[in-house]
Order: sequence, then C-alpha cells, then structure tokens
Amino acid sequence: MSTVLAALDPTAPQSRLTAKADQEAARERFEGAFGIVRDELFAHFAAHRLPADAVEWYSRVLDYNVLGGKLNRGVTVIDTVQVLKGIPLTDDEYFKASVLGWAVEFLQSFFLVADDVMDSSITRRGRPCWYRQPGVGTTAINDALLLEGAIYRLLRTHFKGTPYYAELLDLFHDVTYQTEMGQLVDLITAPEDRIDLSKFSLERHSLIVIYKTAFYSFYLPVALAMLMCRIPSDPSEPSDPYKLSLEILLPLGEYFQIQDDYLDFAGTPEQIGKVGTDIIDNKCSWCINTALSVATPSQRAVLDANYGRKDSACEARVKAIFEEVGIRERYDNYEKDAYERISALIDDMPEVQSAGGNAVLRRDVFRMFLEKIHRRQK
Amino acid sequence: MSTVLAALDPTAPQSRLTAKADQEAARERFEGAFGIVRDELFAHFAAHRLPADAVEWYSRVLDYNVLGGKLNRGVTVIDTVQVLKGIPLTDDEYFKASVLGWAVEFLQSFFLVADDVMDSSITRRGRPCWYRQPGVGTTAINDALLLEGAIYRLLRTHFKGTPYYAELLDLFHDVTYQTEMGQLVDLITAPEDRIDLSKFSLERHSLIVIYKTAFYSFYLPVALAMLMCRIPSDPSEPSDPYKLSLEILLPLGEYFQIQDDYLDFAGTPEQIGKVGTDIIDNKCSWCINTALSVATPSQRAVLDANYGRKDSACEARVKAIFEEVGIRERYDNYEKDAYERISALIDDMPEVQSAGGNAVLRRDVFRMFLEKIHRRQK
Repeated sequence: MSTVLAALDPTAPQSRLTAKADQEAARERFEGAFGIVRDELFAHFAAHRLPADAVEWYSRVLDYNVLGGKLNRGVTVIDTVQVLKGIPLTDDEYFKASVLGWAVEFLQSFFLVADDVMDSSITRRGRPCWYRQPGVGTTAINDALLLEGAIYRLLRTHFKGTPYYAELLDLFHDVTYQTEMGQLVDLITAPEDRIDLSKFSLERHSLIVIYKTAFYSFYLPVALAMLMCRIPSDPSEPSDPYKLSLEILLPLGEYFQIQDDYLDFAGTPEQIGKVGTDIIDNKCSWCINTALSVATPSQRAVLDANYGRKDSACEARVKAIFEEVGIRERYDNYEKDAYERISALIDDMPEVQSAGGNAVLRRDVFRMFLEKIHRRQK
Repeated sequence: MSTVLAALDPTAPQSRLTAKADQEAARERFEGAFGIVRDELFAHFAAHRLPADAVEWYSRVLDYNVLGGKLNRGVTVIDTVQVLKGIPLTDDEYFKASVLGWAVEFLQSFFLVADDVMDSSITRRGRPCWYRQPGVGTTAINDALLLEGAIYRLLRTHFKGTPYYAELLDLFHDVTYQTEMGQLVDLITAPEDRIDLSKFSLERHSLIVIYKTAFYSFYLPVALAMLMCRIPSDPSEPSDPYKLSLEILLPLGEYFQIQDDYLDFAGTPEQIGKVGTDIIDNKCSWCINTALSVATPSQRAVLDANYGRKDSACEARVKAIFEEVGIRERYDNYEKDAYERISALIDDMPEVQSAGGNAVLRRDVFRMFLEKIHRRQK
C-alpha cells in the first residue's frame, strides 16, 4: 500500500501522525515545483519584450493568487498518478504530474479571482481579494484571464507532442465551460442583491454544486492523472473508464460541497476556521434548500422574510427554522445515504489497465477520496 | 482573379460598385452560417439539463454580443481560404471556413464584453455595453468567459480529428494570451483615472497596438485560413510561412490602428461615424505619443495639464498642440513610409504550396489587405 493510501486507511488510526507528516511532505514537494513553473511562465512573459512594469505586475498576480490555498486539487493529481502506477514515480513522472497539478491550481485561481469580482467578495484565503488590492480593481478581470492563459502555456511546454495532448486541452476546455455554466446558474439563482427563494430548489442546488465545483475539483484532477497514465478511453461505451469515474466523482463532489454547506451552519469557528455567512449572503446552500423543501407555510414566511439579510437577528430566525425542521438529523441521513450510494458505485467499478500495462485504474483511488471526506468535521 | 481580389483591385475603380455588392453578399452569407453555429451551441448548452432561465440567458448573451459588429475578422478567414484555394469553395469548405470565422468573432466578443467592464465603457456598436443592460452587471464577466468557451466547443465539433486540430487550439491560445498581455500593458499605462503621460511613448504605443489588436485581428484570421488549407509550418526556419505572415500582418495591424488613432483626431463624424474621444479618455494613442516625442517643454506642459480631462476646453488645447507639432504632415509621412515598408515585405515573401498542393499562400492575400487599408478615410 502506498504512503498515500496508508495515510488515508481508516483501519490504521495508529498511523495517523505519520500520515499527516507524509501529507505535509507531499504538499511541500509539490510547492517546490511551483518555483520551476513560475520561472518558466515568467521567462516566457518577459521574452515578449514586455515592459518591466508589466512583468512585475504579472509576477505579483502569480504570487498573490496561485499560492496560499490548500492545494488539495493539485496534490490529488500527483497522488492519483502514484496510486495508478503503484510504484514510486521517477523524478520526470513526478514533475509532469506536478505540472498538471499546477495547471489545476491555476484554473482554480482564475475562477477565484474572477468570482470575487462578480460576488463583490471581501476576503479570500484570509487576505483581501486581489481586486481589492490598491491599484488593481477591474484589472483583476484581465489578470484572471492571464492565469487561465498560463494553463495552456504550461501544457504546451510540457505535453505538446505526447499522444494525449489534444485530450488534455479538451478536458480543460470542457471542465472550464462546465464550471462557467455552474457559475451562471448560481449568479442568476442567488444574486446577492435580489432575494427570491422561489428560485431555489434542491434540484437547482445539486446542479450548481456539480457544475460549479465537482467537475473541476473532483473529476478534473483524477481524469488528468488517468490521461497521463494512458488509461484508455472509449467514449461510446457505458463502461468507458472516464465516464465511470465521472459517475463516482460528481456525486462525491456534491457530497463534499453539501458537507461544506452544512458545516457553514453547524460547524464551530474552531472547526471550520471561519464564521459561516451563507445565510446572510443569500447563498443557495443545501441547508436553505432542504428547509424550503419541508417548511410549513408559516416557516416558509419566516425564511422569505429573513434569508439573505445583512442582519444577525434575521440570521438567528433562519437558524431557528433550520433547527425546527430537523436539519441536523436530515444531514446525518443524507450523509449515511451518500456514503452507501457512492461506496456501491465504487464496488461496481471494474479496474482497468493502461495502454502500456504499467498502470491500473484501481478502485482504491475512489475509496481513498471517499474515506478522506466521510464524516469530516472541518 | 477571384471576386474577393477583384473587389479590392485598385486598378479597377469602375468595378467598385459591384465589388461593394459582392462584399455585402459575402457578409450576408457569413451571417447565414451564424444560425447553424448558434443552434449548435444552444443545443449543447440545453443538453446539460440546465434550467430554462440559464438557457435563455445564454441565448441573450450570444445574440447581443456576437452580432452587431462589422464582421471583418470573420469574413477575412473565408476570403483568405478562397484566395489560397484559388477556385470557388465547396459548401463543406465554405462552412468549415465560416466556423473558423465565427470562432474569431466569438473571441472578439469575449474581449469586448470583458474590456467594457474593465474600461467602464458606456456604449459599444451604438448600443449600451452588455454589462450595463438591466440585471447584468458583473455577471458579464462570466458571460465573456462563456463566449470564450464557445470557441473551443465549435472547434471540437467541427475540427476534432483533423490533423491540424491541436494547431488550431494552440493558435487560439497563443493569440488570446498575447491579447491579454496587450490589455495588461494598456491598463497599467493609461488607466482612465490616473493620468501620467510620463508612462507614454511611441514604443509602448506600438507594443500595445500589436499585442492588443494586431495578433487577433490581423494574424489570427489569416493563420486560421493557412492551417485549414494545410500550408506547412516549419517553426525552426526563418522562412516559415506563418512567421513571414506574422512579420507582414503585425505591421499591417499597427498601421491600421494608427489610422484609427489618427482618424479619431482628424476624421469628421460623417467619416468615422462617431465623435472621437481619445483625448478626453486618456487613451495611449499614436497622436499623443507623436506629439510627446517632439513637444517643446512649454507644449509638453500644456499636454500634461490638459490630456485626459473630461473637459472640452482642455481637449481643444490638446488639439491645438497636435496642430502646432504638425501631426497631419507627420501622419502623411508615417502612412507613406508604412505603405512602402509593408509593400516591400510582401514583395519579398516567397509563395508557398500547401501539403496536398491544392492551395498556395499567395502574395495577393497580403496585397489585398494592404490595398484595403491604404489611405482609408473611415
């Protein structure tokens, strides 16, 4: 069993401390590769005879926005390649996997910088949002586009000429477009300044979560690793490994986001590292949609009158309704059901050999994710 | 000689009326292809089980932003394929060329929608900018991204499997990134709210114009036609046809933009269809940069005190300096020199056969552009 799986093996609690140190080491090694990637992008930018102030601006854009997150998506690419290969990666394999990992992190930073402008957000990763930095403003929109552009620069430099180059590009395009579809539905469903709960529903919540988050955060890192390991694709077959992976990873991503929504309401600041603001921010969260789906007319009236208001008394009234409708028990039931449902999908998944035979799409990849997420409290 | 070239043949003034009708017909046929492209994008969007309000929003985004322009870039792709082939296009060739043309138009609309937010612009193509439409606001940023995403959807549907698919994607990525570099330099050189002429220079003007406009407006349509016609690429050679085309089309794009800048100052509203606002808007235009390059200290002081002010008396003072430094004569000299310089580049260009031998990269392609632009008054 690889260190990655050992780190997540729920039957081995005694190894948790080592596991945590391993994870930390993995993250640090991945961060080390950023230096190379950054220098490359920087050199390419400077080689375009761009003036010094533009090169310096670009450098600030990279450093402020790409670093500072948890890097889970990027590290997942490397972990998955590791599990698929089953033996330690060569330095070259490691570096290629980390370029793909950083490409996912650039995609994430592109979305966050742009979303923060659209959502008028205040802070991100514990610091002011990029567009709120002095002298930035709406230039952040172009900066987000440059972060997106860097993805294709990285892929070009390191993957042009591989037999799966076009597939990598198609995958990034698909996932980007799907995420933008999700962002559109979210923006027109829950604009911060026009509260209208009649637009909300659990079905719409599911759609927003899957499109806006699950494709790029859950499917993309695994599909990239599968492409790099030459897991064959057969799009016309229901047994296509990419399709089967999607069918597991989208519900998994939905489960993860529903946990996030629930913890925003039920988690303590000590647990989640912040004070939840979903109710005040008119967010189309799992909690409000669940409450709406079972509310009596009088409970509904309280929700309509108090949700999305910048007022802590209103927030408290909404929270009281959440408790009244038994949101905690409903969440426990949801979690139990989601875990069983996703477990069954994983059990049914056939394991597939790669083109060259030196990698296998193992069920462990998905099991590892599920166990990492199951019953998380932060 | 094709109708396209006949239309632009400067030795045949008597055919100008027919030529104009031909151009109009070409534009109409190209517009006809939009219906197919639009329906495809729409069907793909709707197939993602997106809710009706999202599909309807997307439809408004397409119709408001992609149509309404002059469509020069899109039509150029088709015209160029026509000239390279030398015989009338089959319906299939025509449609493929028009998909590439629409992909360029989508790129253009993506840039315009995003730039209008960044520049706080008021109108575009004689109507309010998209972000200023009721209920849109910063959602326009995501809409711009969806317009960009549509490019890759179109290419995927119609070019996946062709031997030049990856080249098409690389070309769009390169040009997009270059345009974003140009937009960055423009934004940090001439922010509307911080006037500082010490940042301006003719060198910087040239860089902004080439990166922000010439790559996507001049090189991209021709390079797409070259790829579709299988003109071979040889990136390591100085005689690479794509490199030689770039060396002609970037100066041509710069020449075109300098005409635009000059006409903003010297053109009458009847000529250019609008009242020029470059001086008031603190634009890093050819006129101000030329004036700065020759101004005496006292003229410079007038420019510093009056450029970029929302005040018609200030604007008049700047205009007076432009006249004092002889901007009209300087422009005439610039135009004469640019025409001769680009003509010489075209004359030196070797004509190159396509891979299959059924197309030729002819000098006429570039000659046609140059004559179209030369001494234009609108």
